[in-house]
Amino acid sequence: MQVSVLFSGGKDSSLAAILLEPFFDVELVTCTFSVLPVGEIARETAARLGFAHRVLQLERSVLEKACDLVIGDGFPRNAINLIHENAVEELAADGHVCFIADGIRRDDRVPVLGIPCIRSIEDRHGVHYLSPLKGYGRAAVNELVSRHLLIEEGQSDSIIKADYETELREIIRKRHGLEKISEVFPAHIQSRVIERKSQARPEQADRHD
Amino acid sequence: MQVSVLFSGGKDSSLAAILLEPFFDVELVTCTFSVLPVGEIARETAARLGFAHRVLQLERSVLEKACDLVIGDGFPRNAINLIHENAVEELAADGHVCFIADGIRRDDRVPVLGIPCIRSIEDRHGVHYLSPLKGYGRAAVNELVSRHLLIEEGQSDSIIKADYETELREIIRKRHGLEKISEVFPAHIQSRVIERKSQARPEQADRHD
Repeated sequence: MQVSVLFSGGKDSSLAAILLEPFFDVELVTCTFSVLPVGEIARETAARLGFAHRVLQLERSVLEKACDLVIGDGFPRNAINLIHENAVEELAADGHVCFIADGIRRDDRVPVLGIPCIRSIEDRHGVHYLSPLKGYGRAAVNELVSRHLLIEEGQSDSIIKADYETELREIIRKRHGLEKISEVFPAHIQSRVIERKSQARPEQADRHD
Repeated sequence: MQVSVLFSGGKDSSLAAILLEPFFDVELVTCTFSVLPVGEIARETAARLGFAHRVLQLERSVLEKACDLVIGDGFPRNAINLIHENAVEELAADGHVCFIADGIRRDDRVPVLGIPCIRSIEDRHGVHYLSPLKGYGRAAVNELVSRHLLIEEGQSDSIIKADYETELREIIRKRHGLEKISEVFPAHIQSRVIERKSQARPEQADRHD
């Protein structure tokens, strides 16, 4: 069974892929609007993690709509959700995709797909949508991340990664100027995966501890 | 890292343990009020799954309170939640336990612990509470179960397992008679695990397909 994991190069989507790996053939999928080379950035990280990777082109109109939403709302939540829902829909419409996963955690407030939205996508396309970290709190995720990944963390404007926010910030910068970004995006800590600590099964690694 | 998985002998808690196995040392924990030999039933299933197992004795007063709740409410939801919360609290209070898991799925309505309740337990006891199936819908769980487990399914009054409902039904039968059970417990399909389909890693199994 193959699972397509929406992949930003951050710790959550990386850990989601690692948790699925013993049970699925994992392919990482990074969405892009081709505003910035986020596909390439993610491809490098995916290679370091040892997973297959592909780039999924999303409609530029979705990013434009998301941009309008951020500016109208004054915060990015609805815009990020719009992009995420669109990404899952796009993957689900691919006839070869059966399992779709993301890195959403229990405590995440954005992106989050509501249950009715998830069920609608699952039913219309005959796919399964998985959030392997949905039952994990922040501290548990961090504990597992520290065992499996070497990460870099920093303020969201200093970390180059391949999440939805990266291209959303860029289109806002182009259209509304740099100051607008700090006005609508609350500063928050982002993570970028440097490498995987061990390709070996954790229990095998334990034996060598 | 050890994880203690609350285990009923059903497919959900069994699958939760299987999903955690590559990343944790799994011990299965079955709660009992010693009204019925549910610990023994679960121990046999755990042995067939190849996991360590222990029985956790819960206070009889909790079952009695749960019984009063079912009778008062006319449905078992709050009673089952009370027992589950008590089981997680009891495990969390064990100084040796750091990760606690259960088999709650995305679509489950009972038992469910609310986020504030989970955070309270995590913070007070310094533990992590995991629901590995929380991001999996019913169909995805069934797909994984069919790959990893041989199960028996039947109406809830015909399947002998080690879930909270088993002893709750028994105390209601003793106190209020057999008819009361069908009055307050909606008939539903239960599962019991017969055996594990493969002890090998799924990707290893795939190679032999």
